[in-house]
Amino acid sequence: MARWAPDARGRLELAAMELFGEHGYESTTVAAIAERAGLTERTFFRYYADKREVLFWGARALQDVLVDRVDHAPADLSAIEAVTAALAAAGDEIFVGRHGYAGRRQAVIDANPELQERELIKLARLAAALADALRRRGVGDPAADLAAEAGIAVFRVAFGSWIYGGGDRTLSDCILESADVLRDVTGGRGRLRPD
Amino acid sequence: MARWAPDARGRLELAAMELFGEHGYESTTVAAIAERAGLTERTFFRYYADKREVLFWGARALQDVLVDRVDHAPADLSAIEAVTAALAAAGDEIFVGRHGYAGRRQAVIDANPELQERELIKLARLAAALADALRRRGVGDPAADLAAEAGIAVFRVAFGSWIYGGGDRTLSDCILESADVLRDVTGGRGRLRPD
Repeated sequence: MARWAPDARGRLELAAMELFGEHGYESTTVAAIAERAGLTERTFFRYYADKREVLFWGARALQDVLVDRVDHAPADLSAIEAVTAALAAAGDEIFVGRHGYAGRRQAVIDANPELQERELIKLARLAAALADALRRRGVGDPAADLAAEAGIAVFRVAFGSWIYGGGDRTLSDCILESADVLRDVTGGRGRLRPD
Repeated sequence: MARWAPDARGRLELAAMELFGEHGYESTTVAAIAERAGLTERTFFRYYADKREVLFWGARALQDVLVDRVDHAPADLSAIEAVTAALAAAGDEIFVGRHGYAGRRQAVIDANPELQERELIKLARLAAALADALRRRGVGDPAADLAAEAGIAVFRVAFGSWIYGGGDRTLSDCILESADVLRDVTGGRGRLRPD
């Protein structure tokens, strides 16, 4: 039971994640989630269209932060600097204090191919929204698409380092490190080992 | 009718693409594809598991070329150089002479969300296979994942430039150009326009 959870949305999310972990995503019903949260199914549907939405509603908040940050980034930044700063800001605004939750959520997604597809679609939409924001700031094609796709690659890799790491680093730290590695990699640093 | 097509697989592919274009992907049956190709349904299923596979069987060939090229890349290349060279080689080996086909295929995919999901999954698998190949060549983490993801971003953007462009450039040209732009972008070239 999640009696301490301050709000209905958060209680439903926590209850869903517990049940997905205990019984698997497929076997968990909306009725069971609502019951665990001490709320009604009707309340559940006030916040989420279905049980899948519990896992993905955050993508909208993430997109809003990223687009807003690029829309208002200082004009002395390059495209990739604006994207990296936006991702790091999202790390601070959305993911601080959510390390445990993010790891449990990822385990649910990793166990279910349909959810992995949904995750890929959300990330593709995020890249498209970021590219549109960059174009509004005067970045041309194909630079806008490449900066956006590179940013999403940085985010994915950083997210993995963050949730599978020990939890002593913030997501923002992981994002800044991942962006540095990408710059070194695309700049041609390092040689292959002989095959 | 595609009487000139030299082989059953190619005839079925051409017939499928014609019918997807004429009647839409959803409304086209395997029976209609086989009939248009002058072959039996049984022959169709010798080459393809279902009609969706007609659109995606090439992903396997693409992955094989990319992984083979990275496996055998010269050891004086950097990770991103090896990936870019592998993508350009795939452009030459797989896509030369396929500009018209690739454009028709893309139009079918763009019209169907389920096919777009499938395309995203194939690209994600491609990135994972490329990253594994880079790790076999001694590239560490997270550089291997980032070089692979960056390569797939280059491929996606280049593919779009190629099929929506006039057809006077090869896919390999577009890939090399796209890789140059990514290097400039991640290196911080260009400033945003004031918001």
